[in-house]
Amino acid sequence: MLEDKTPQRTPLEELGEFGLIKHLTHSFDLSHESSKLGIGDDAAIIGSRDPIVITTDMLVEGVHFDLSYMPLKHLGYKAVIVNLSDIYAMNAQPKQITVSLAVSNRFPLEALEELYEGIGQACKVYNIDLVGGDTVSSQKGLIISITAIGQVKEDQIVYRKGAKVNDLLVVSGDLGGAYIGLQVLRREQEVFKANPDHQPDLEPYSYIVERQLKPEARKDVVSLLKELSVHPTSMIDISDGLSSEILHLCEEGNVGCELYEEKIPIDPTVIRACEEFDLDPTLVVLSGGEDYELLFTIDQKEYPNIKGNPHLTVVGHITAKNEGANLITRNNTKIPITAQGWNAFS
Amino acid sequence: MLEDKTPQRTPLEELGEFGLIKHLTHSFDLSHESSKLGIGDDAAIIGSRDPIVITTDMLVEGVHFDLSYMPLKHLGYKAVIVNLSDIYAMNAQPKQITVSLAVSNRFPLEALEELYEGIGQACKVYNIDLVGGDTVSSQKGLIISITAIGQVKEDQIVYRKGAKVNDLLVVSGDLGGAYIGLQVLRREQEVFKANPDHQPDLEPYSYIVERQLKPEARKDVVSLLKELSVHPTSMIDISDGLSSEILHLCEEGNVGCELYEEKIPIDPTVIRACEEFDLDPTLVVLSGGEDYELLFTIDQKEYPNIKGNPHLTVVGHITAKNEGANLITRNNTKIPITAQGWNAFS
Repeated sequence: MLEDKTPQRTPLEELGEFGLIKHLTHSFDLSHESSKLGIGDDAAIIGSRDPIVITTDMLVEGVHFDLSYMPLKHLGYKAVIVNLSDIYAMNAQPKQITVSLAVSNRFPLEALEELYEGIGQACKVYNIDLVGGDTVSSQKGLIISITAIGQVKEDQIVYRKGAKVNDLLVVSGDLGGAYIGLQVLRREQEVFKANPDHQPDLEPYSYIVERQLKPEARKDVVSLLKELSVHPTSMIDISDGLSSEILHLCEEGNVGCELYEEKIPIDPTVIRACEEFDLDPTLVVLSGGEDYELLFTIDQKEYPNIKGNPHLTVVGHITAKNEGANLITRNNTKIPITAQGWNAFS
Repeated sequence: MLEDKTPQRTPLEELGEFGLIKHLTHSFDLSHESSKLGIGDDAAIIGSRDPIVITTDMLVEGVHFDLSYMPLKHLGYKAVIVNLSDIYAMNAQPKQITVSLAVSNRFPLEALEELYEGIGQACKVYNIDLVGGDTVSSQKGLIISITAIGQVKEDQIVYRKGAKVNDLLVVSGDLGGAYIGLQVLRREQEVFKANPDHQPDLEPYSYIVERQLKPEARKDVVSLLKELSVHPTSMIDISDGLSSEILHLCEEGNVGCELYEEKIPIDPTVIRACEEFDLDPTLVVLSGGEDYELLFTIDQKEYPNIKGNPHLTVVGHITAKNEGANLITRNNTKIPITAQGWNAFS
C-alpha cells in the first residue's frame, strides 16, 4: 500500500481564536518565580513585590479596521484603548505602552503623524508613557501591535477566575453600541460607493458611531469601584460579545450563571438602529463586541454599595456550574449562552 | 490664486527607520516615575527597585523573512532570539516573552505548530516563559510581533550611552555570517526556481547558513563578562550592520572612535563566500546585519581581563567627538563610518 504523503492541513478556522491559542501554547510551562500569571487572563502578571501586568493586542487593516471609515487619528486612539481596557480589567493602572507598526509604502509620513496624534491623545487622557516600539515595512496595509504595562498591588489584582455562587453579575455603561455603530458606518460606505456625492448624515447615530470609532477604556469604573469599596471577585473587559466574556468568567470560576435579558443596559440609539437593521438588540449585545465596558462579579453583600449607581448595572447572578450559563429571556425562557463571539479565522 | 489643496505626502523612505521613529515620537514625554528609560536604547526600563527591561520587535513575511528558504521552526526560534538579544544588550536577563501573530488563512494549523515548536525551543534553551500574546487574521502573509521582558539590578544596567574617550571597542564572536548566509540561500533559491530537480549542497556554507537561519543571542557573553569582572561602559547588539551600531554608541556617548579593519573578526567561511559573490567582507560586516553579536566599550584598565579570550575581540577605541567615527583600513587610510544600515522603507 502506498503511504499518503500529503502533509496534514487543518484549517485554522476549525479551532477558533481561543482554541488555537490553547492548542499552540498548552505545552508551555512557567518556570520563573516572577512569572505569576501567564496566558489566559486579560493580562499576564510579572513579579510579586510590585507586580506589573502586561497585555498585548494586534490590529490588522482589513480585519480589525477599515481606513475608508476609520480616520487614522481615531485608529491610533482606539489601538491604545483596547490595550488599556485589558489592564483595567485586572483592576490595575496602565502606565506604559510600546507601539509597533508595520506599514506599507502607500502611507506617507503625514498619515503616520495622524496615527501618532491619536496615540498621543490617548496617552495624554489616560496618563500613559510611550516607552518603545518598532517600525517596519509591511507588504500590504497597516498592522499595529501595542503592548501595555500596568501596576497593581498584589492584593488588589482581580482575575477572570474568582466568581462564587450567588455573586452578582455586573456590567459598566451600556452595550451593543460599537457593533451597531459599525453597521451604520458600513451602510454609509456602501451608499457613498454608489453615489460619491452623497453627504452622510451621521448625526442621529453620533453616540453609536463614536462608540465604534473612539471608544474609551473604563479607568473611571476602576476608580469608582475603589471609592465604593467594591471588590470584584472576578472581572474581564467586554471586547468580544457579552456571551463570550460571560462564558470566560464561568469557565475560569468553575460556575454557571443566569443573565437576565431585561436587565441588559442598552442605549435607545442602539435599539433604534437595531430596528433599522432588523437586528435583535440582545443578540447584538451578546455576539457583537468592542464595547470595552467591564463585566465583573461582586459578593451580594456589596450590592448596597452599587445600588442605583448610573454607571453600573446588575445583569444577573452566578449559579452552580451544573446549572450552566443561561440567558433568561423577557418571556422567562431559559436559553443556554453560547459563544457566538467573533471567530478570527472564519 | 488657487490654493494647492493636495495634502502633503512625504514618502517614508525619506526619513529612514530611525529618523521616522524620532520624528513620530519626539513630542512624547515620560511622566511616570516608573518610566526610567523610554525610546532610544535596546530596551526600555521600568521601575527602579527591581527594574524590568522591555523590548519589542516585529517581523514581516516578505520583508524580514522568506518562507521559501526559512523553515517555520527556525523562524519561530529566530523571532525570539532577536528580542532576547536586545535584553542581553542591556546586560539584563530575559525572563518572559509575549508572542503576537497575524496569520492568513493560507497557513494550516500544522504550520503554526512548527512555528511554535521553534518558539518553544528558544524558550527552553534560554529559559524564557511565554506569558501572553494575541493571534489574529492577516490579509496577507505572516507577521510576528514579540515583546521580551527581562530583569537586571539597577547598578548593572549598561546603556548605549556611556562610552568614554580611550575606552576599547569590543565585539563578541565574528561578524558578517548572517548576511552572506542570506545571499547563499537566495542564490540557491534562484537555482531551484530555474531547476526544481536541483539538489542544493549547502554543506560548505553550513556555518553562515546557520548564522542566518538559526542565530543565537549572546547570553553566554553577558555571563562571561560577569565572570571576567568586566563592566562595559556602553553596549548594543549588532542587529543592523556594525557601522550603524558603532554610530549609535558614538552618538549616545557623544564621542568618536577608530575602528581597525584588520581587527574585525570574520570567519574564513564568510571570506570564501564573499569571494564567490565578489563582495568586500568588510563592507558586508559594516552594512550587513542580523549577526546578533554584542558590541561594547570597556575601560582600558579592564583590557587584561579580556585579553586572549576567544569570544571577544578588541576592534578599536573611543576618541573625542570632534575626531569623528572612522574606519582605519588595512592600508592605513582613515574613512568616516557612515550608516549604510538597512533602511526599512527603501
